[in-house]
Amino acid sequence: MNFKSFNPPERTLLGPGPSNISPRVLSAIARPTIGHLDPEFLHMMDEIKSLLQYAFQTTNEFTMAISAPGSAGMEACFINLVEPGEKVVVCSNGVFGGRMVENVERCGGIAVVVEDDWGKAVSPAKLEEALQQNQDTKFVAFVHAETSTGALSDAEALCKIAKTHNCLTIVDTVTSLGGVPVKIDEWGVDAAYSGSQKCLSCVPGLSPITFSPAAVDKIKNRKTKAQSWFLDQSLVMSYWSGEGKRSYHHTAPVNSLYALHESLVMLHEETLEKSWERHQEQHQNLANGLASLGLEFVVPENERLPQLNTIMIPDGVDDAAVRRYLLEKYSMELGAGLGKFAGKAWRIGLMGYSAQYKNVVLCLAALKDAIENAK
Amino acid sequence: MNFKSFNPPERTLLGPGPSNISPRVLSAIARPTIGHLDPEFLHMMDEIKSLLQYAFQTTNEFTMAISAPGSAGMEACFINLVEPGEKVVVCSNGVFGGRMVENVERCGGIAVVVEDDWGKAVSPAKLEEALQQNQDTKFVAFVHAETSTGALSDAEALCKIAKTHNCLTIVDTVTSLGGVPVKIDEWGVDAAYSGSQKCLSCVPGLSPITFSPAAVDKIKNRKTKAQSWFLDQSLVMSYWSGEGKRSYHHTAPVNSLYALHESLVMLHEETLEKSWERHQEQHQNLANGLASLGLEFVVPENERLPQLNTIMIPDGVDDAAVRRYLLEKYSMELGAGLGKFAGKAWRIGLMGYSAQYKNVVLCLAALKDAIENAK
Repeated sequence: MNFKSFNPPERTLLGPGPSNISPRVLSAIARPTIGHLDPEFLHMMDEIKSLLQYAFQTTNEFTMAISAPGSAGMEACFINLVEPGEKVVVCSNGVFGGRMVENVERCGGIAVVVEDDWGKAVSPAKLEEALQQNQDTKFVAFVHAETSTGALSDAEALCKIAKTHNCLTIVDTVTSLGGVPVKIDEWGVDAAYSGSQKCLSCVPGLSPITFSPAAVDKIKNRKTKAQSWFLDQSLVMSYWSGEGKRSYHHTAPVNSLYALHESLVMLHEETLEKSWERHQEQHQNLANGLASLGLEFVVPENERLPQLNTIMIPDGVDDAAVRRYLLEKYSMELGAGLGKFAGKAWRIGLMGYSAQYKNVVLCLAALKDAIENAK
Repeated sequence: MNFKSFNPPERTLLGPGPSNISPRVLSAIARPTIGHLDPEFLHMMDEIKSLLQYAFQTTNEFTMAISAPGSAGMEACFINLVEPGEKVVVCSNGVFGGRMVENVERCGGIAVVVEDDWGKAVSPAKLEEALQQNQDTKFVAFVHAETSTGALSDAEALCKIAKTHNCLTIVDTVTSLGGVPVKIDEWGVDAAYSGSQKCLSCVPGLSPITFSPAAVDKIKNRKTKAQSWFLDQSLVMSYWSGEGKRSYHHTAPVNSLYALHESLVMLHEETLEKSWERHQEQHQNLANGLASLGLEFVVPENERLPQLNTIMIPDGVDDAAVRRYLLEKYSMELGAGLGKFAGKAWRIGLMGYSAQYKNVVLCLAALKDAIENAK
């Protein structure tokens, strides 16, 4: 067989992630690899930690990046915190809430599932009810920004309820971090994980994570070892910790961390507030254009994620044909529907570096063309 | 706080990995990110699969890369294959054999540990004895190339013994793949994992993995779900499988996979045989030079890994001072001793792209200078 170097096409990435990556970040990832225990590298890791504390709006000492994608970040939260037999109320309003339930069950926890409609925010009232019925609950888990539907939940309200019932909170901020406010300390989030490839516009493969002091206490006082060695945060802590000697745990993904560092430096330069505004503004531009095209959102207006716009596929329009047309004619990727929305909705992501006016304009023009062509 | 872009120094990486990365691979990783379900990306994944089959010398259909470092590859093998209560004989002759034991125990398996001296190959006779004493053993696990000591074990002989006792074999090829012969099918290896950052000279963060049809059968017929969702290979299979529709499992580390593809294309161009020869030749050059300097190997001559040379630190020489001197004056990284060898040995890696004559010459000159300076 004959193998050649791979030269990917240049896409406009308007799906649920990965988003487009800035040339600055692509340039950073290609810098010379150095050792994972090199003093220069350890210094850069310290900066990543500070920058992630900024992004998460937290002073949590335990704030770093898991050396694997967001789903490993999710797993790291559950398997480190939840011990066999402990009860977790999971508010589920989409694919990723469902994945949380899988995680709880696989680590021997008891999942109490509070179902909410797909495409809607999680209901605080239903959470309150579930906690009243399950007084022995140890954790409340929910997805802040459901990537499968584009719904944004009120994390502050949900955490407040959890706290009144003395529960630790585990929050999925994969799609929210950098795109809408995420305030770990102010809201009382105990464990949160995110993904590098959404609103941070870094390459896929890393999962920023943060644990509150209460969560760290819970980890340190486990009766049993966490079931994963790779994701055992009591071991990883001693590699990321700034104090004293760093001990080797696993070989860190050096170049991907260069990329994460650069994407976080860019976010810090722009400031979180400006980034949130930019996402909101481009969302509004897109929403206006979609209305002109007669396309309807799945999510009610006040529960919409600006960075992920889920719209109903009009009757008689072939889902796959439209996305293929966009890919072939415009080299543009839109997201397909996921789970219950497969074949029924499209997901238009305006995340991180992709959240630019020129992309909104191109998306609207291309979508109009594609729908007309597919009828 | 003020944060700037990170510009790493250019190192000569002669430690236990990461090894130096070719400009071709660094150029590949910086290419534009595309979606993890993009048809062009799926085609590249198919090529990675074929190229890994070549590297592993296998026709195993289930051959791919785990989206996380080698220690996650190790964990993927154990948690997918070993069910609670099943017995695993682990031959341990270094840090990574010890990590295998951790893995067996964390997934509820029963580990029977066959201890061998650090710095020596695993003893086939001891394995045979252990299997005779433990007739209910389901798996034999060992490290082909111990990265903590530089010892190479006879994988073929060990697998043969395992087979006569009807055991499946789990083999760590993290440091061996690409540097010395690894023949999965010929030797009867059922599950093997490797790392991207050793003799493949790709960026750290990926773990090539392969499962024999017998291993896949074992996974498909599990009575309980694997304890990890992220590493559940029965789910990952349907993303990497070439047939029919690929289903989304997690977002693949797109750019790191570009790099892996390029490093495997380079290995295929050179051919495995030439790569093995090159590692052997540079090892011999290094060994000759070390002898002239009066430095002694830890591992007996016929059990040495060409790509990882562990040498005793001479009496009266300050370990840390020498390595710091090499880093500061030559921008060269040597590996520190690990585990029992911490402070007692250095590990000189000549892996993949680092296995070049010019590096051997520079290493010998720099080491001579550093030792004289540190006395």
